[in-house]
Amino acid sequence: MSVLNPPPDALLARLEARLGPRGFTRDEDDMAPWLTDWRGRYHGRAAALVSPASAADVREVVTACAQAGVGIVPQGGNSSMVGGATPPAQGGVLLLSLRRMNAIRTVSAEDNVLVAEAGAILTHVHEAAAAAGRRFPLTLGAKGSATVGGLVSTNAGGTQVLRFGPMRSLVAGLEAVLPDGSLYEGLSALRKDNRGYDLKQLLIGAEGTLGIVTAASLRLFPAAASRSVAWCGVATPSAALALLRFLEDRTGPAVESFELVPRRALDLVLAYVPGTRPPLAAPASWNVLVEAVDAALEPPLVEAAEAGLLGDAALAVSEAQAEAFWRLRDSISEAERHSGPALKHDISVPVAAMPAFMESAAAAVEQRFPGTRVIAFGHLGDGNVHFTVGAPPEADGAVWLESEALAVSAFVYGEVGAAGGSISAEHGIGQMKREALAATVSPVRLAAQRAIKQALDPKGIMNPGKLLPG
Amino acid sequence: MSVLNPPPDALLARLEARLGPRGFTRDEDDMAPWLTDWRGRYHGRAAALVSPASAADVREVVTACAQAGVGIVPQGGNSSMVGGATPPAQGGVLLLSLRRMNAIRTVSAEDNVLVAEAGAILTHVHEAAAAAGRRFPLTLGAKGSATVGGLVSTNAGGTQVLRFGPMRSLVAGLEAVLPDGSLYEGLSALRKDNRGYDLKQLLIGAEGTLGIVTAASLRLFPAAASRSVAWCGVATPSAALALLRFLEDRTGPAVESFELVPRRALDLVLAYVPGTRPPLAAPASWNVLVEAVDAALEPPLVEAAEAGLLGDAALAVSEAQAEAFWRLRDSISEAERHSGPALKHDISVPVAAMPAFMESAAAAVEQRFPGTRVIAFGHLGDGNVHFTVGAPPEADGAVWLESEALAVSAFVYGEVGAAGGSISAEHGIGQMKREALAATVSPVRLAAQRAIKQALDPKGIMNPGKLLPG
Repeated sequence: MSVLNPPPDALLARLEARLGPRGFTRDEDDMAPWLTDWRGRYHGRAAALVSPASAADVREVVTACAQAGVGIVPQGGNSSMVGGATPPAQGGVLLLSLRRMNAIRTVSAEDNVLVAEAGAILTHVHEAAAAAGRRFPLTLGAKGSATVGGLVSTNAGGTQVLRFGPMRSLVAGLEAVLPDGSLYEGLSALRKDNRGYDLKQLLIGAEGTLGIVTAASLRLFPAAASRSVAWCGVATPSAALALLRFLEDRTGPAVESFELVPRRALDLVLAYVPGTRPPLAAPASWNVLVEAVDAALEPPLVEAAEAGLLGDAALAVSEAQAEAFWRLRDSISEAERHSGPALKHDISVPVAAMPAFMESAAAAVEQRFPGTRVIAFGHLGDGNVHFTVGAPPEADGAVWLESEALAVSAFVYGEVGAAGGSISAEHGIGQMKREALAATVSPVRLAAQRAIKQALDPKGIMNPGKLLPG
Repeated sequence: MSVLNPPPDALLARLEARLGPRGFTRDEDDMAPWLTDWRGRYHGRAAALVSPASAADVREVVTACAQAGVGIVPQGGNSSMVGGATPPAQGGVLLLSLRRMNAIRTVSAEDNVLVAEAGAILTHVHEAAAAAGRRFPLTLGAKGSATVGGLVSTNAGGTQVLRFGPMRSLVAGLEAVLPDGSLYEGLSALRKDNRGYDLKQLLIGAEGTLGIVTAASLRLFPAAASRSVAWCGVATPSAALALLRFLEDRTGPAVESFELVPRRALDLVLAYVPGTRPPLAAPASWNVLVEAVDAALEPPLVEAAEAGLLGDAALAVSEAQAEAFWRLRDSISEAERHSGPALKHDISVPVAAMPAFMESAAAAVEQRFPGTRVIAFGHLGDGNVHFTVGAPPEADGAVWLESEALAVSAFVYGEVGAAGGSISAEHGIGQMKREALAATVSPVRLAAQRAIKQALDPKGIMNPGKLLPG
């Protein structure tokens, strides 16, 4: 990729004049919160923080940077898990925040479409859809800070992918500023549009390396009237998958979440997270949290129990109990933190291969790295689990992480590759997984990706140092 | 785009030796059926017809052509509506048929995935899914000849898009030979995979201009136990859309088809298609054919009638009656042919804009071109109608088509553009709409498409003369 230039003073002065004091700062204190990722793992520098108020502002910034060969790092809610929105450590780039562009432009219940600017926060999208009697189904833990632009650019997943798919399935149109400063006006929400290569599909998941998403048309669905939530004990991951298929056959698409929790993870939550209590009278080896919308889970669960597909089960009889079940699932990451240093992996394999993978890969890791403890949990129905390798209890955590991280992750990714899987299911590549990407995907795929990057961003100004290996 | 060479004799001899008599022919009679599109509008020539039996064969052909700068036209069921699979009139290319590669490689009910080679016919995919207790939902009129490769490459639509989306929503993975002869191995069906730019998304709808799809992983769904089909009379297209939203609110995603038929179209069918009879006792200005799967339409339709959302309605009480209703819808094109020459347009606009568009655009066309009669019908719920402009009854049809076609279509596309729509909803661009594409999409979109083509097929060998304007 081309060599970038630090922004010349004249360019900075021009942008400062255009964007005004709310839209331009070089103050270190003002910039500081946005130069480190929220997990505190990546630290970057930037020549300035620019905060455009409109797509026209964004065009101005990008056009100037394209001419001068200056790098731009777009940032939304700064909630990347892979350092995708943190500038390079050496600086010399502009950090471009979309947070001022946070309008919900339109909501159409008749069209089932909501148009939001890139900086709109997911929670606000949920609220705007609900106010129109509709529902935007994608949700995730960071919903209070994650922005539409970031969700689009990372093809975000979350807990409702089983039914509604990831962000890619929910984006009906995009507006974006391309690396040459031109404006791609593709907000028109067409259910069918076969006019050649779909640029929108490239921008989704491109992590800001092909342009800056400035607004998105999002698909809405009928509001959900009720949900049914149950906690089930099963013997194995295979039994869990069989239960999922059984429930889907009985309820059609009503099952929206199907989360697998091993006993180890539940025990950690019960030990470390205050106010939690066991969901079942007798602990099960594996647990499933299932949620169905506008359909009752009781009849199919009774039938499944009679067919021997599950052990104990508890059906939430109140919204409070449903929330308590979800809290057990959502507290796993927090509980893991209390239990010591660990390496996390966000991986996917084909759904049917996941049960065997969870058991065989965990065993292989624990054998290869004695003393480690694997906890794999999450979105079984999507073939996506969070695969955590805990440091041996007797090891110094920081030292272990430093010395073993690369080897452990490479081993995990090798197992993933052997199962036809992906080293990044929903978090993206960012700066964290660039080298792992190079090591694990085929040269054909990598060459095609590089050719696309070169074609659309020949100067390499968009989010330099992210996604594609150096 | 680069200048292509006719295939040298040495290349032809090498491919003949590799592919054998079943896989290679230069016989004019053998080639003839595949050199004209099924509607008989486009006629092409080819130096040879090659029919590879494997992806390795396809690689051999593409590699040889890439080295020699020879054009390749991929073809599946030859059922393109836009001449997308017909070689150029001047010939000098290879016609590459995927029909020998017609295996269903695997069907996994547990994974809800079926892997089919590019030449597998849609009907066979339906049957293979059903045999595993599953369902592949996409269907269309040409299902007995359309192939998986063609369906992928045109991002095909059909009658179940309302619920399941077009082909893009149903492709879980692809295998393809890229323009340099390399093999993209992306069949692994991952529900979540965020490893950068998704090449699969570019190949879907690329009409064979970025590579040759050799196999696809397709998503399956639970088999449908029953369907409920009704024919409803409504006053206006707006009333039809209100009825759709009402039914969706009551039945969730069960409504899979919602087809709008104007009285004019129904009258043509009843006049020209033997064995049809009126579905309602009293003719309605507008008609809706609605199908719900695994949900009863009677209760919500009764409720809708009480709310004044529809006039008469007939609920099919037998599969024979349901088929008769569908036959009325599916016979419109045939009836139109009997009623004289006409220009067809496959267009889309945002769903909420469609009712007004159907009335205003039809009126505008009939005013601008006196004597013409517009019939717009089809997939209202997708914002996609087939917009047919019939020649004035007193005109000589052939002469009228010859003299007015460009002006009429340009006018229709102008109305579509003003409504934020697409000149190709589901049929693609092929060779028919290349110039219309150039005239109607933004320079930004076109420049990005050209850059992508140049990046992945720098010699321009893949399906020359299709999709991108010359």
